[in-house]
Amino acid sequence: MALLIKTDIDRGNAWTEALAAAYPELTTHTWPYDGDPAAIDYALVWQPPEGELKRYPNLKAIFSVGAGIDHLASDPDLPEGVPVVRMVEPGLTAGMSEYVTLAVLSHHRFLHDYAVQRRDKLWKEIPQIAAAARQVGMLGLGVLGRDALEKLAPFGFKLAGWSRTPKSITGISCYHGEEGLREFLAGTDILVCLLPLTPATEGILCRETFDQLPRGAAVISVGRGGHLVEEDLLAALDSGRLSGATLDVFREEPLPKSHPFWDHPRIFMTPHVASMTIPESACQAVVANIHRLEAGEPLRHVVDMARGY
Amino acid sequence: MALLIKTDIDRGNAWTEALAAAYPELTTHTWPYDGDPAAIDYALVWQPPEGELKRYPNLKAIFSVGAGIDHLASDPDLPEGVPVVRMVEPGLTAGMSEYVTLAVLSHHRFLHDYAVQRRDKLWKEIPQIAAAARQVGMLGLGVLGRDALEKLAPFGFKLAGWSRTPKSITGISCYHGEEGLREFLAGTDILVCLLPLTPATEGILCRETFDQLPRGAAVISVGRGGHLVEEDLLAALDSGRLSGATLDVFREEPLPKSHPFWDHPRIFMTPHVASMTIPESACQAVVANIHRLEAGEPLRHVVDMARGY
Repeated sequence: MALLIKTDIDRGNAWTEALAAAYPELTTHTWPYDGDPAAIDYALVWQPPEGELKRYPNLKAIFSVGAGIDHLASDPDLPEGVPVVRMVEPGLTAGMSEYVTLAVLSHHRFLHDYAVQRRDKLWKEIPQIAAAARQVGMLGLGVLGRDALEKLAPFGFKLAGWSRTPKSITGISCYHGEEGLREFLAGTDILVCLLPLTPATEGILCRETFDQLPRGAAVISVGRGGHLVEEDLLAALDSGRLSGATLDVFREEPLPKSHPFWDHPRIFMTPHVASMTIPESACQAVVANIHRLEAGEPLRHVVDMARGY
Repeated sequence: MALLIKTDIDRGNAWTEALAAAYPELTTHTWPYDGDPAAIDYALVWQPPEGELKRYPNLKAIFSVGAGIDHLASDPDLPEGVPVVRMVEPGLTAGMSEYVTLAVLSHHRFLHDYAVQRRDKLWKEIPQIAAAARQVGMLGLGVLGRDALEKLAPFGFKLAGWSRTPKSITGISCYHGEEGLREFLAGTDILVCLLPLTPATEGILCRETFDQLPRGAAVISVGRGGHLVEEDLLAALDSGRLSGATLDVFREEPLPKSHPFWDHPRIFMTPHVASMTIPESACQAVVANIHRLEAGEPLRHVVDMARGY
């Protein structure tokens, strides 16, 4: 049985090692691969070239290295009928929850304002707001969004979540659909986006959305750069409609040096590092899924390519 | 029954209102008070002038507005035999745990390094370290230190704590005394100080302590400014012994504009705002204690003035 790995070189090596330890019987190849395409059973990929995956006639499953599969959905030549599996693994989830908690607490505790004051050597207390008086609203209630809310719960924030379809989660006010979005946004002081990127969610962080948040709300964008209408964010920050933003993902990555985000005092940003798949823990998820398929059991975390997640 | 409040004016007003609502039968006066000193039963104070509290012959208890009582212990004329009560209230505890979690996650996720990279418009991933591979070490296992560790537990950090006397807390490696300090420091990657300020803890964050931490450790100082030997911190940061520090308290507050901390790229700082007593929640603690005393029951959270906390 053979698996083809297409990631960057360092990560590819880490995956090769991790899979060799977890599943010695599995042969792994790293892309580019010039052997017999028919010998490849599985692909583990991040941003493969368009049409690449169609070259392997016997593919049984395509594993995304990341939680999102938009890098696969954009391939018009993706082989039909081959299941695409999103990455769900504890290392990735833990990293995202750390980052979201850090970003939420930063806005909650006025970290950006204190940084601005510091530049002026200004010693001034900003009256604190109780966590119970703030609603953290999560766009997207998948594995990542739910875990982040769970990590925020002990701090006493009001927690809300929005998803396309109805969900019910203890301790979280759940909203859904277009109607629900309005009510969800109206009560949300700190908005986090962990949606999948699909045609329906592209540009969801836009002026219309910002205008429905309470004045002075903060936005944390950690899903995909395509969720954010960047010029709308700049306008909302400059008008005071939003008080700040934390961004880890961008329309163009690396962010061009001329981009206004680099210097904006109300934007905190990181270079797409909110969370990373950890091969050591993630290989367990991949191997377990391969074993399931080989045993005739259903794969876990298969993507519905029609809805895009 | 009468209580004298000595804080700044805004906080004094908030306390007066909160106490009026929680205990209407209690007469409150705000300092300066020119009525009969013998009429004052209780004092609720922050940094009273030296000797001031000795003026009231019938004081039954002195309540500190803050968790620390070093501002009272430094009064050589503190009336003898009058119990001093530290502030333990949910608002203060919650605020401190938010701040400590924020500071720990900031160091854990290389926030300072990313901020430095950003100034150079540098898009570069810093390899992430799993929380399970980091030990957060808490100096001080009182109400605040313990709650902060509890809030950090769900992230999976290794948790350790050090106190003067032996303690045993589930999920936390507890060390004590001088011998224990060495072992505690040797394993601690992110050190948090929430000790009371006493002659024994003054200057505990010094070169000797930093040298026992693993190279590249981070320090979070949120107890009192007197814990930190400021020039030792600067030397440890500049030599790379420490990777960064988060400071909320300083030897001199407000921090003088000429102080080197203001501009140091490896110091994150805030103006003594990590946590504040919230009169609305704190008045419940004060009122409950007054009721206890009046009913002949023992007061809670009385300070042992000989040990200083």
